[in-house]
Amino acid sequence: MTSTHATPVSFVRGAVDAELTAFTGERRADLLEIGPELAPAMEALEAMLTGGKRLRPAFCYWGWRGAGGADVPGIYTAAASLEFLQACALIHDDVIDNSDTRRGLPATHKRLEGLHERSSWSGGGAAFGQGAAILIGDLCLAWSDQMYAASELPLKALHDGRGPFDKMRTEVMAGQYLDMLEQVRGAESVGASLRVMHYKSAKYTVERPLHLGAALAGRADDLAPVYTAYGLPLGIAFQLRDDVLGVFGDPGQTGKPAGDDLREGKRTLIVAETLERAPAADSARFRRLLGDPGLTADDVEWMRGVTTECGALAACESRIDDYVGQATDALDSELIDEAARGSLADLIVAATARKH
Amino acid sequence: MTSTHATPVSFVRGAVDAELTAFTGERRADLLEIGPELAPAMEALEAMLTGGKRLRPAFCYWGWRGAGGADVPGIYTAAASLEFLQACALIHDDVIDNSDTRRGLPATHKRLEGLHERSSWSGGGAAFGQGAAILIGDLCLAWSDQMYAASELPLKALHDGRGPFDKMRTEVMAGQYLDMLEQVRGAESVGASLRVMHYKSAKYTVERPLHLGAALAGRADDLAPVYTAYGLPLGIAFQLRDDVLGVFGDPGQTGKPAGDDLREGKRTLIVAETLERAPAADSARFRRLLGDPGLTADDVEWMRGVTTECGALAACESRIDDYVGQATDALDSELIDEAARGSLADLIVAATARKH
Repeated sequence: MTSTHATPVSFVRGAVDAELTAFTGERRADLLEIGPELAPAMEALEAMLTGGKRLRPAFCYWGWRGAGGADVPGIYTAAASLEFLQACALIHDDVIDNSDTRRGLPATHKRLEGLHERSSWSGGGAAFGQGAAILIGDLCLAWSDQMYAASELPLKALHDGRGPFDKMRTEVMAGQYLDMLEQVRGAESVGASLRVMHYKSAKYTVERPLHLGAALAGRADDLAPVYTAYGLPLGIAFQLRDDVLGVFGDPGQTGKPAGDDLREGKRTLIVAETLERAPAADSARFRRLLGDPGLTADDVEWMRGVTTECGALAACESRIDDYVGQATDALDSELIDEAARGSLADLIVAATARKH
Repeated sequence: MTSTHATPVSFVRGAVDAELTAFTGERRADLLEIGPELAPAMEALEAMLTGGKRLRPAFCYWGWRGAGGADVPGIYTAAASLEFLQACALIHDDVIDNSDTRRGLPATHKRLEGLHERSSWSGGGAAFGQGAAILIGDLCLAWSDQMYAASELPLKALHDGRGPFDKMRTEVMAGQYLDMLEQVRGAESVGASLRVMHYKSAKYTVERPLHLGAALAGRADDLAPVYTAYGLPLGIAFQLRDDVLGVFGDPGQTGKPAGDDLREGKRTLIVAETLERAPAADSARFRRLLGDPGLTADDVEWMRGVTTECGALAACESRIDDYVGQATDALDSELIDEAARGSLADLIVAATARKH
């Protein structure tokens, strides 16, 4: 199944997509048997499952290979199940943040709101869309676990994997809650940003998927610390790259409007750095503009200028470099199977490369 | 552990409560380690876990005993895990329906909205409460599965139980979606009510928990049809009793304001029967009043009168009697272990007795 041209992400993506398609087809049949009117809900769910980078399954798969696991079908099912968890997190996150779009397409609740309007049903369309999106996210969360348990791996291995699998779910939800809390508290500190990042990104996106792969292969005890040393800095670097792209990213590449994070008022680390480093007058104006949905292209350009001039951008890039260095150093462990080390190194590049 | 004075529900309740307390204590520790600010979210979650009737765990437990399963600790853990699923369903349902109270106490999103207001945080308190409740419900859903998988039963048994466990989750969410859909479509037919009841109540509350008990005991193949014959009519009868109480119930016993379902505009079967059977003028006025949050005590009294006089109440009571008869007849099967048959009969009474 390997190809010399495949990257460690694209290599896993094909098999993970096939697993998702097969599993989703069965779930679609279950739902339509309950009621044909569930078809639009299923379509909205399927739309959320397409187009992701499959980063979490890739870390799970390479975590397994790094633990000496063989390239068997069961690991792709277990890895793919993480995409349903992610779909739940995104669908519910969009309801919570009241975001209209996701990856350039309507968010799930907006889709269902549109269905309500086209159907001329009674009651509020927005409330219907939100309610439907909550339930569709719930289905994703239940199906993540259903798919995981259906993986053709020994029951003992799946049982051993539940430690990281369970922690991952608790941590991402707790991280989302803390994120919400920091927003309403108006937290601006670098420290607050880093804690949310630790749970929502570093552990959830990188460390726990790696731990899951190791635990499924029966190597949790010796490999988990190595994967933590590699995964936590890499996860933070990945999130910092995403934050930089949220300010400076090219809409053609990110699928989001230019300066989207500024318009949404996300309290990311690059924003915290800017508010701390910029001259007081600029910092105050930056704070006033932050979160204004009506930001003009000129406003975004001015905010980018402040971010660059005060040194916040350079500080973030420097942090990314540091974390990438830490992750790279951690790979220098004999505990990681030789066959996977190159791919784990490539994953560092895939997750943190400059794209703007 | 049996007592001659214990009912089949109260007998299970004590052990299930103890399991929930132990498991919840561990999860509380997990959350507080992530951040002490998660304490109020955990308290809201714990509040939702107390005070339930534990009907689903009772059906799961007696389904297991009816399949010849022994009174071992593991079955209480598996049975108790259904309460976390129910907590998720209730928390998300209250957000979707925008209900202010649950069992006479503030709904989860209202609790967190209150926290937001007391803390003088920025942004909207209602949005914060809803967002927090979505995440707290998600935690409950993930923990339901975590608790199930942690049950001290053989891994093979837990794997066999996943069939009904998974179906139960899909069906309750699909049922909620159909319920929402019937509301916005303004469906009033008895048939539409019965379909929602089939998934949201009959299968979810009674049939699947029984199937889970049988599957855990390795008796899914022969016992599932018997439990379906007992569980589906009993589940419908249980929901019809709840619907009657929603119109005629004594607030002191139900924990809800008198005529609460009328004020909320729930399209229950007793309402559908009333709209069909009452004289046209009464039916039209009834329809206008239905769902008016400002209903007076006199309005409720008048609506109760219409429900009684047109024969809708009697029709519901007669349906309940029929379904109770069907459930009782189904118990007359040699496949059900003698030790559990009396308790399964008592459960019919517990789930459907008149309380007004």
